[in-house]
Amino acid sequence: MKNISPITLFLLIFCVGANAQQSKFNDEFLQQVAELRDAALTDGLAYDITESLTTEVGARLAGSPQDAKAVAWAQAKFKELGFDRITTEAAPLKRWTRGQETAEIISPYQHKLTITALGRTNPTPDEGINGEVVHFATLADLQAADKSEVAGKITFISERMERHKDGSGYGKAVGARGLTAQVTAEKGGIAAIIRSIGTDNNRTPHTGAASYDEDTPSVPAGALSNPDADLLVNVLKRKQPVTVKLTLTSHWDGDYTSQNVIGDMLGSEKPEEYIVIGCHLDSWDLGTGAIDDASGCGITMAAAKLIKDKLGPLKRTIRVILWANEEYGLSGAIAYHDAHKDELRQHILGGESDFGAGEIYALGTRVAESAMPTIDIMMTLLKPLGIEFAGNNGSSGADLIPMRRAGMAVFGLKQDGTDYFDYHHTANDTLDKVDPKALAQNVAAWIVVTALAAQADHDFGFGLTDKTE
Amino acid sequence: MKNISPITLFLLIFCVGANAQQSKFNDEFLQQVAELRDAALTDGLAYDITESLTTEVGARLAGSPQDAKAVAWAQAKFKELGFDRITTEAAPLKRWTRGQETAEIISPYQHKLTITALGRTNPTPDEGINGEVVHFATLADLQAADKSEVAGKITFISERMERHKDGSGYGKAVGARGLTAQVTAEKGGIAAIIRSIGTDNNRTPHTGAASYDEDTPSVPAGALSNPDADLLVNVLKRKQPVTVKLTLTSHWDGDYTSQNVIGDMLGSEKPEEYIVIGCHLDSWDLGTGAIDDASGCGITMAAAKLIKDKLGPLKRTIRVILWANEEYGLSGAIAYHDAHKDELRQHILGGESDFGAGEIYALGTRVAESAMPTIDIMMTLLKPLGIEFAGNNGSSGADLIPMRRAGMAVFGLKQDGTDYFDYHHTANDTLDKVDPKALAQNVAAWIVVTALAAQADHDFGFGLTDKTE
Repeated sequence: MKNISPITLFLLIFCVGANAQQSKFNDEFLQQVAELRDAALTDGLAYDITESLTTEVGARLAGSPQDAKAVAWAQAKFKELGFDRITTEAAPLKRWTRGQETAEIISPYQHKLTITALGRTNPTPDEGINGEVVHFATLADLQAADKSEVAGKITFISERMERHKDGSGYGKAVGARGLTAQVTAEKGGIAAIIRSIGTDNNRTPHTGAASYDEDTPSVPAGALSNPDADLLVNVLKRKQPVTVKLTLTSHWDGDYTSQNVIGDMLGSEKPEEYIVIGCHLDSWDLGTGAIDDASGCGITMAAAKLIKDKLGPLKRTIRVILWANEEYGLSGAIAYHDAHKDELRQHILGGESDFGAGEIYALGTRVAESAMPTIDIMMTLLKPLGIEFAGNNGSSGADLIPMRRAGMAVFGLKQDGTDYFDYHHTANDTLDKVDPKALAQNVAAWIVVTALAAQADHDFGFGLTDKTE
Repeated sequence: MKNISPITLFLLIFCVGANAQQSKFNDEFLQQVAELRDAALTDGLAYDITESLTTEVGARLAGSPQDAKAVAWAQAKFKELGFDRITTEAAPLKRWTRGQETAEIISPYQHKLTITALGRTNPTPDEGINGEVVHFATLADLQAADKSEVAGKITFISERMERHKDGSGYGKAVGARGLTAQVTAEKGGIAAIIRSIGTDNNRTPHTGAASYDEDTPSVPAGALSNPDADLLVNVLKRKQPVTVKLTLTSHWDGDYTSQNVIGDMLGSEKPEEYIVIGCHLDSWDLGTGAIDDASGCGITMAAAKLIKDKLGPLKRTIRVILWANEEYGLSGAIAYHDAHKDELRQHILGGESDFGAGEIYALGTRVAESAMPTIDIMMTLLKPLGIEFAGNNGSSGADLIPMRRAGMAVFGLKQDGTDYFDYHHTANDTLDKVDPKALAQNVAAWIVVTALAAQADHDFGFGLTDKTE
């Protein structure tokens, strides 16, 4: 699409005409946005940024030595891209550090298992622990079990996550990851293993955070890869006692202060009003964090840079936030909300790219009804990218939760997540999983939403009820 | 296919009629074979055997404690399946044992890499070795390099294997695995790393044997997973010196005697003549050896068992050999050839199933021209399975190499290997990679070839020139 089509232009003018009060975009601006959208489809900047972060920093678990390197990388990259203002804001966190992680079936057969510790769980002794496995099909089955079934044993939940384009299998399965360590502890178990929350068949187990608070008992807990979980299920089918040895020495490791890194492209008329986009800067430590979430950084940093270069400063500031420690604490999100709680109304609209690098197929919003005409114009510009409207009952990326709960308007550009949970939180989250073409389509879509929001004459509401929760 | 179709029957009778001298199969026998072929398509025995070996033994590197367990498993399984005669034959080998295997980029960035030692290579010191990386696109480039480029460095070959249905990318790429340790040593390098010989994008590196003899200098050598090789290439693109640390403590570990395990279904007329089928019993140690080669054991053990049960004893003995240490020495193949060298002519026709669990799409043979009419009849029965004839210039599985070179007639039922090298020699070689339906199609095909060969009135030639070498 090199030029805006006559029919698109007609639709744009019609929309602008019909909603002149809300959306005084001029035709030339909309034409420029359409041209930039199309140019973005063959632009490689987002991929280059993604390659840079994964190659020059790689794995960057919050609180690890790589955390500070990621922060330095982000500052340098914002500078290189010509952002007008680059700041960092402290994000304190309680550090969790991965240790050794091994598992094996000891009897009745001998197998090494691939396992990864669940984030925020407690360690086994250094020499590991042995125990008989008690098998539950689901978390609910474990929750319903009598303490006598669990006491002194290693629990195993074997439920498998379902594959769906919208990733909806995740919510259904992830409760096991969140709760098994605490439920097992409550029933007197000594450790917990789950089938990875993932849709693949690779020997690359999926980590991810477990629920944790200091006052609730918990046990060491890990996730087996899907093939290892299959194997354990098959061994258990033999109806003999099955003994497993686990060594998971991951542990809490004191306090750390990470940083949100913020790049602003300043607005020309209302620089103190922010359209907030971004990604999380941290990653789990098993892969290089390419789809979770370097690609989100590439998409949103590139979108802001291309807008600035091709459209010039817009009315509002485009604020790109690279959030700290999304993965096991939302530390950056909480810190930012707290630091800015007196100016939340200056945060006009926000979104986060944090669902991989798949093509975008829908826009969801949670904005005031009065802003819907502008959403309609966005949709007119998004339709040529294959993007449908998913309604005004939308949500946002996790790092916007604190501000969304406070009433901020948000949007979500929904990515095809069919394969996302093959790699999510595994050693397999590496650059090869990023398709440059799909990434560029993401940038095109983020440009449309971000530019129109930054240029709109109106806000998108505040104090909205979060209908998703 | 429940019954033999009229047209198939016509073709069979036509063939039998036309070649009455060579192939005195009676119609009833051919009808029974066709019925058994069709019944095999929904039979689960091969899958059950594959599941049993991978679950009850799992990884079974030759010379490891699992080797003896695999031998015991094979003896028990042959007995359970009702084989007439079960024997073991010694297969001496020089034992190679995997140790620790870690790698990391130390500068200019820090990354943990996934690596696996190449079989039969020497260890690094326990504390590892550091060195600057010198990058070659191909083995040929390394071979052409001046010693001054390589001396004191760690070589890295980044050539990527191509994906093809017939696995032909393997032969093109695998030379790097075979020779890099010796070529690097010859040029004064301190260690060698290669991109895995594999077609996947998983963090599961591919092991496999390197060339070795006691008199040729060699260095420690390992294979990076494809994503890790990509990362190293991208780091090298920055044109700064790249330093890597390798710890590969795998080593030679004395002598061991493994066993070929042989199950015979005795012939009724010529019990001393053998149709040799089978698989290799050993596996690499990273996965559970499901596609390499438990599935081959499942296919051939099930084929022999179903023939015996449904067709009764045939004229010749069907000999199923589970070969010892195919992976790093062909120890069982060499030992069997040497032990039976005075009776090789009693080995009428042989094949090995050792290319995973994909559907069979072709039959290749290397038999005397006088036996071709029987091959034509086999083809008539194989065509309904989607199997074409690939010519009489065929090869065989690796364990038949010594007997093939001595002139034995062989066949190969060629499997779709499109995905085989995604998993081959990796931790990902697990049961979930086996499709029960494709496995059953394999059994059906092996039944056809094995039964007709065992019942044929003629031999398949001997002293044949091995046109494949």
